[in-house]
Amino acid sequence: MRIGVFDSGIGGLTVLRTLADALPGHDLVYLGDTARVPYGTRSPQTVIRYSLRVASYLYEQDVGAIVIACNTATTWAMDALQRAGQAVGVPVFGVVTPGVSAALKVHKTGAIAILGTEGTIAGGAYQRGLAAAHAGVTVIPVACPLLVPLAEEGWVTGDVPRGVAEHYLGGLRGQVDTAILGCTHYPLLSSVIAEALPDVTLVDSAQETANVVLKELGPGDDTNRSIRFLVTDHVERFKRVGATFFGTEPTHVTWVDLPEPSGEFAAPSRTDTA
Amino acid sequence: MRIGVFDSGIGGLTVLRTLADALPGHDLVYLGDTARVPYGTRSPQTVIRYSLRVASYLYEQDVGAIVIACNTATTWAMDALQRAGQAVGVPVFGVVTPGVSAALKVHKTGAIAILGTEGTIAGGAYQRGLAAAHAGVTVIPVACPLLVPLAEEGWVTGDVPRGVAEHYLGGLRGQVDTAILGCTHYPLLSSVIAEALPDVTLVDSAQETANVVLKELGPGDDTNRSIRFLVTDHVERFKRVGATFFGTEPTHVTWVDLPEPSGEFAAPSRTDTA
Repeated sequence: MRIGVFDSGIGGLTVLRTLADALPGHDLVYLGDTARVPYGTRSPQTVIRYSLRVASYLYEQDVGAIVIACNTATTWAMDALQRAGQAVGVPVFGVVTPGVSAALKVHKTGAIAILGTEGTIAGGAYQRGLAAAHAGVTVIPVACPLLVPLAEEGWVTGDVPRGVAEHYLGGLRGQVDTAILGCTHYPLLSSVIAEALPDVTLVDSAQETANVVLKELGPGDDTNRSIRFLVTDHVERFKRVGATFFGTEPTHVTWVDLPEPSGEFAAPSRTDTA
Repeated sequence: MRIGVFDSGIGGLTVLRTLADALPGHDLVYLGDTARVPYGTRSPQTVIRYSLRVASYLYEQDVGAIVIACNTATTWAMDALQRAGQAVGVPVFGVVTPGVSAALKVHKTGAIAILGTEGTIAGGAYQRGLAAAHAGVTVIPVACPLLVPLAEEGWVTGDVPRGVAEHYLGGLRGQVDTAILGCTHYPLLSSVIAEALPDVTLVDSAQETANVVLKELGPGDDTNRSIRFLVTDHVERFKRVGATFFGTEPTHVTWVDLPEPSGEFAAPSRTDTA
């Protein structure tokens, strides 16, 4: 089977890497919407619109399943993407439910922090997922906007990343025993996050997401599977920055044109004409 | 006259503020392309495409002139926007040429730094502008990618912004006497930039841009002029974050739908199929 994996940009490569290991016999097509990255500060309506556009392109690539390797897109667009997927018979997997499961497995005291983008925290999908488990956990959500640009710069060690992590997370020390890395960029910063949160277990949803997809789709049987990359903006920058996230420099990278459809969309928020 | 002012997001509000003071008798319409911000890390082709889309919308608003209040858009899209403007008889002003003029007026030793986004530095418009003046200046360009997200967060003082400024700019101390703030977000960070570069004159192109526009268009004679804001993504976030840049919270903010035109565009970079 061909599996489509998508993210706003390059963060999802941390998930792709895990999927590639866990599902060695499936073709993988990764689409990074680098012309519109980041999704983390955009309105729900805009994230849904961009996500549906990306998914419709992946359907044209004959994917048999889609993995949303982006927490913000999963948070806001999972429902819309699943409805669209059902219409064409393509299952859609996100990273939030697996992240919730992983956290519920490892926490000890029931105090769990969620670290994410503005959108992921405001959207509340992790908070709802943890509440729905009726596990009696206490959830502390923390938006950490600067972590994405730091990771994208590859600036992951030293005083500045340490200072940024301390700024967002210092107040959590002693308050939680588990923290969900609720953004696919954050695993790159796990060393400074761990320094700010000693004795806290950091949960990365990539492995659990791969487990879920493996359980549904099996490991595949293609002995000569391919991994391809599609990006909506520069190829060179994706390769250069992507190497840090994927472990090796991505090859077979192609630019694709994804003009937005015209037509009626919901306004992202009330117009202020006061 | 109605003047259209555009930026990728909210940084251009620092320019709008100066224009509003310098040209009290013209209507001003500001368009922030917040659904596609930032432009600073995108390919030239993508920046040109987005900029042309924004400009064509402003023409529909009957603007008599356009000010590109964004260094990256000026760097990559000035030529394309001026050609499009000529076709409809609308003059287009950018921020780079005024920034160059301002720096040439104040420098003492001929050693000038340019601080900007990845795109602004790579595009080389400031470097070419300074070279074209044949003033015998030495130019040191420095890309400072983290400054935009810091300014957008309103995180402009303290150890982290100071550390980021020091990281990018520490090496410039003793090397230059003048530094161009080549991004409309940077005036917000001028205190930490000045700390990293003591005895260096910081040049903000907003005032010189306003001078150029004033000279061409005059102060206007509308005694009841309006200032309106158009954004392509959430209105509330623009008002909240924009207040820091504009001095007061923007009012009369309206969401506009700017779907991209379909059709043929140049690919942003060579496809890698190796």
